[in-house]
Amino acid sequence: MMSLTRTSLEALDRIDPLSQIRALFELPDGVIYMDGNSLGARPKAVTARVTEVVEREWGVGLIRSWNDAAWMEMPGRVGAKIGRLIGAEADSVMAADSTSVNLFKMLGVALSLRPDRNVIVSERGNFPTDLYIAEGLAALLARGHELRLVEPGAVEHAIDERTAVVMLTHVNYHTGAMYDMAAITARAHAMGALALWDLAHSAGAVAVDLAGCAADLAVGCGYKFLNGGPGAPAFLYVAPRHQAAARYPLTGWLGHAAPFAFETSYRPAPGIHRAIVGTPPVISLAALEVGVDIALQAPMEAVRAKSLRQTAVFSELVAQECAGFDLHQITPADPAHRGSQISLAHPHAYEIMQALIARGLIGDFRAPDVLRFGVTPLYLRFADLWDGVQILKSVLQTQEWRDPRFAVRRRVT
Amino acid sequence: MMSLTRTSLEALDRIDPLSQIRALFELPDGVIYMDGNSLGARPKAVTARVTEVVEREWGVGLIRSWNDAAWMEMPGRVGAKIGRLIGAEADSVMAADSTSVNLFKMLGVALSLRPDRNVIVSERGNFPTDLYIAEGLAALLARGHELRLVEPGAVEHAIDERTAVVMLTHVNYHTGAMYDMAAITARAHAMGALALWDLAHSAGAVAVDLAGCAADLAVGCGYKFLNGGPGAPAFLYVAPRHQAAARYPLTGWLGHAAPFAFETSYRPAPGIHRAIVGTPPVISLAALEVGVDIALQAPMEAVRAKSLRQTAVFSELVAQECAGFDLHQITPADPAHRGSQISLAHPHAYEIMQALIARGLIGDFRAPDVLRFGVTPLYLRFADLWDGVQILKSVLQTQEWRDPRFAVRRRVT
Repeated sequence: MMSLTRTSLEALDRIDPLSQIRALFELPDGVIYMDGNSLGARPKAVTARVTEVVEREWGVGLIRSWNDAAWMEMPGRVGAKIGRLIGAEADSVMAADSTSVNLFKMLGVALSLRPDRNVIVSERGNFPTDLYIAEGLAALLARGHELRLVEPGAVEHAIDERTAVVMLTHVNYHTGAMYDMAAITARAHAMGALALWDLAHSAGAVAVDLAGCAADLAVGCGYKFLNGGPGAPAFLYVAPRHQAAARYPLTGWLGHAAPFAFETSYRPAPGIHRAIVGTPPVISLAALEVGVDIALQAPMEAVRAKSLRQTAVFSELVAQECAGFDLHQITPADPAHRGSQISLAHPHAYEIMQALIARGLIGDFRAPDVLRFGVTPLYLRFADLWDGVQILKSVLQTQEWRDPRFAVRRRVT
Repeated sequence: MMSLTRTSLEALDRIDPLSQIRALFELPDGVIYMDGNSLGARPKAVTARVTEVVEREWGVGLIRSWNDAAWMEMPGRVGAKIGRLIGAEADSVMAADSTSVNLFKMLGVALSLRPDRNVIVSERGNFPTDLYIAEGLAALLARGHELRLVEPGAVEHAIDERTAVVMLTHVNYHTGAMYDMAAITARAHAMGALALWDLAHSAGAVAVDLAGCAADLAVGCGYKFLNGGPGAPAFLYVAPRHQAAARYPLTGWLGHAAPFAFETSYRPAPGIHRAIVGTPPVISLAALEVGVDIALQAPMEAVRAKSLRQTAVFSELVAQECAGFDLHQITPADPAHRGSQISLAHPHAYEIMQALIARGLIGDFRAPDVLRFGVTPLYLRFADLWDGVQILKSVLQTQEWRDPRFAVRRRVT
């Protein structure tokens, strides 16, 4: 194979069908941003939209904006837009709460739909909040639910006739490995179980077809590939066939059939609307909607094609430029099993990542030993990959990561 | 008693020690805003602060701002500020999630602290989300918990040795009636039960002394008297003596003792920190903090004194100007039992309120028959009360509320 050069990568940028979208984002000078799978970059249009919500809708419209500015419609409107990115049916997605809270709702719904089963199957290396929420719900119910944690390759075998729900993160936060959603969902259904997918590292980054896979339930994150801002509202999905029977553990007034009738007893709203609990976070939803609107401009096939090309290029560049530095890629090489990141293990990953960030290459560290580089096709250039790997190479060659300041542990890593 | 006049009310404005604070809020021309107990007015400084968060902290700082801009500290920092408004001890309040979700957490904590008891006592006329959340939690647990709903005067008698927790909204959203927090908390404790207070209509409006009352748990709202913006994050309180034993039903990664260790099993963070579930909503928290900072500028005694004076004046003006129009005040006349609103029952309350709003007097309708007028001492003037009651009088005299357009039901009322 020919060596990659900056020139050859610049050529890829020139033919990139998504290249114009980068201009919609604010990206600071001197930064190569490969952490969009932790916090997406800021769409430039967010300032104007948030200012409009604050000054006109809130400041002038005041309480009237719940009707006049359609605030009450926002969870469904933004949810429907996200639904288009993940292959969801109409009226099956809501933007609300946090991923963790939504996961609690969806697990509660799953157990309500499978009352005679008591096993939740998941992956030991799943993102911790998924495991913690499941553990907490099982402890709360105190009815002997088992959280059965296995290795990724053992998931299908672990699903049996006691399994209520298989709860997996489609793309693993740590390794970047991606499950075959259709196959695992089919296996769950064959055993009478439900499939609940966490799309935190999928929505906006890889092609997802919830309806086509016959997925049952899903949740996902607004602040990663959807670029909704720090702590943006999350989303949830309930397949239309389950909506009427779904019983939610969180039964708030805005999920009531008639919130403003102020009835004493809870009556669930129709369909997906019962997924709403409290008052929608209007300002945050407005920021999220700007990010989602940009994602809808980019055909998902083009996003996925560029993502796979960029992860392949990054992987190849690391092999070409950084051989001999004890880096070990843990992300699968097979495109069918790879999300939109490259994770590299190294014994001194923490210090190396701090040194990279000081040089302007922003990825993140994931305990205990992973350098994680997210690929965000909407704003990352191929030339950035070259420049980033040159920084990585330089940091490794000079061993500047051994500077004691890079060993200082920060709260958020 | 001498009649009230606009001149006499202008005189009260001139000696109002809080009069300068109004200038910190945006209040549109032609509007008399008496719905700050539903959605508080916008602090002018919100635009600049939110823009700073969006453009500098998110746009330039990107993921680094979790450390560099202290985003991770926001729930605790904003929570501590709210704590000063409600008489909470240090490290006992967090700003997070919605009131409904926080109520679910606090009810779960309460039941975990009283595992041998199975009754939740509340008021039949409590705000519905409180009742729905309790009903949903009881259904989820399926262990025979009873939600015992009584009339306000029967609450103390309803607390018995089976009562795990008394859950009340301190100031009733509908009537504006206020409970004696110290007395009911003492009665709960005497029976071995806990007291959980919803401060939605109290925080920032009336004097609250959680520590002094020995309250056990509390929740409250960020978008009413705290002026945090539409759908602002809510807050919760856990008395220090309960924090170590508190088991939460929602166990998310940011409530873990070591979130970035990515452990497989949940270990609760120390103290109040385990109350956090998912990633904090940074932009919304920043807006809320601006509102809370303003509330902290106003001595609570002055706020409460002005609030009581204004509700008294409004009540008196209605009696003086609108006699004979079938208005019936349901808010207690006794200041010790009155929050910061005046609720007036009328058979055509819905239509009348729509007509008032069209004329620029914004209150709200509460089913089935209440005109609700919130008093927000930080930005409401005594002269506004005169002008507002003149509008009310005119709408009643002219019967313009009979125009069919005012009978059209809007989604949010």
